[in-house]
Amino acid sequence: MQDAPVHLYGATYSVYVRICRMALAAKGVDYQLMPVDVFADGGPGHDHLERQPFGKIPAFEHGDFALFETDAIVSYVERAFDGPPLECRNAAHHTRMRQLMRIVDNYAYPALVWKCYVPETAEDREVAAESWDAAAKVLAVVACLMGPSWMAGPALSLADIYMWAALAYFRRTERGPELIAAHAGLAAWCDRMAEHPVSVATGYEVEM
Amino acid sequence: MQDAPVHLYGATYSVYVRICRMALAAKGVDYQLMPVDVFADGGPGHDHLERQPFGKIPAFEHGDFALFETDAIVSYVERAFDGPPLECRNAAHHTRMRQLMRIVDNYAYPALVWKCYVPETAEDREVAAESWDAAAKVLAVVACLMGPSWMAGPALSLADIYMWAALAYFRRTERGPELIAAHAGLAAWCDRMAEHPVSVATGYEVEM
Repeated sequence: MQDAPVHLYGATYSVYVRICRMALAAKGVDYQLMPVDVFADGGPGHDHLERQPFGKIPAFEHGDFALFETDAIVSYVERAFDGPPLECRNAAHHTRMRQLMRIVDNYAYPALVWKCYVPETAEDREVAAESWDAAAKVLAVVACLMGPSWMAGPALSLADIYMWAALAYFRRTERGPELIAAHAGLAAWCDRMAEHPVSVATGYEVEM
Repeated sequence: MQDAPVHLYGATYSVYVRICRMALAAKGVDYQLMPVDVFADGGPGHDHLERQPFGKIPAFEHGDFALFETDAIVSYVERAFDGPPLECRNAAHHTRMRQLMRIVDNYAYPALVWKCYVPETAEDREVAAESWDAAAKVLAVVACLMGPSWMAGPALSLADIYMWAALAYFRRTERGPELIAAHAGLAAWCDRMAEHPVSVATGYEVEM
């Protein structure tokens, strides 16, 4: 079953597609990225709705096993393939990993990506002052919770992967570098993550 | 450490507070519920913001270990306390459990609770036709993914706990029972969940 073909459906600009790509890269899994553009005129198409009934990306297939929701895809990748573990085994680290993953979903992704990066790159829209404040608050919370070298344990975990997929965009914003630099540990983590093979292998277009 | 006092901060009306209460009840953990009302005038108060910097509920403490985000709290409860496992061990079941948990976060909770239950109970607002359609779609997806007796494996898991915390409200809506009854397996699961000791021990006020 490990040898069955792996397909990931989605667009490389998506934070959540990148999370899955980073997890697959970390495990050394060969996969084919099948382009699906959720912003296309008329939506992502009927064939995609059969894979993901809510029309979101990513969706995933391993042989005839189909799956959607990033959290489930990375959980599957962790269990179905060999390679270094991506989930912290130690209970305290595991708890922190889950907390940081959900902080990305609920606060970092909306604040850093949708309220700062997206309006800034749309060019005709300015980032509101309160969006930078909200981003600064998220960074402060993350800097306080993260470990000394990796987000949630002694090695790269899903917490690092989730956080980097959002922060790699935020670093490209006008005030991103300055707001990150306010937290020395977080800034050092960012520098290491930017050079990590798993980040390099899955970079966003703006990082290249 | 198991014997250190457990505090859960939040309101009994909250779907996510109930998820934590159900997990604690399933493990047989004694805990104290510390009331925090996020809808109070002026917000939840400064002391709560020290526990949960984004002002949401629930927050959690076990002795001097503090934590927020429901997914992390239930992950901690699973690992820190004895009692029946709440996370499926089998890889395929675990994957499905994670998928169903995120389907609650991303689709079921917004559609069933915020777009159907909340406006209906506000009395002055009617539930829009498209809200019932969205709810029906979520139910169809869940009915298709769920197992024959429990949501994601051979016994109660976090997938059942997450799903019930949302569905217990939806069952109280005008069209809820009819829309659930369209899926025999889901309807039978609801009936069993309604009588499960963990549901009974943590019921919403409207269920009593």
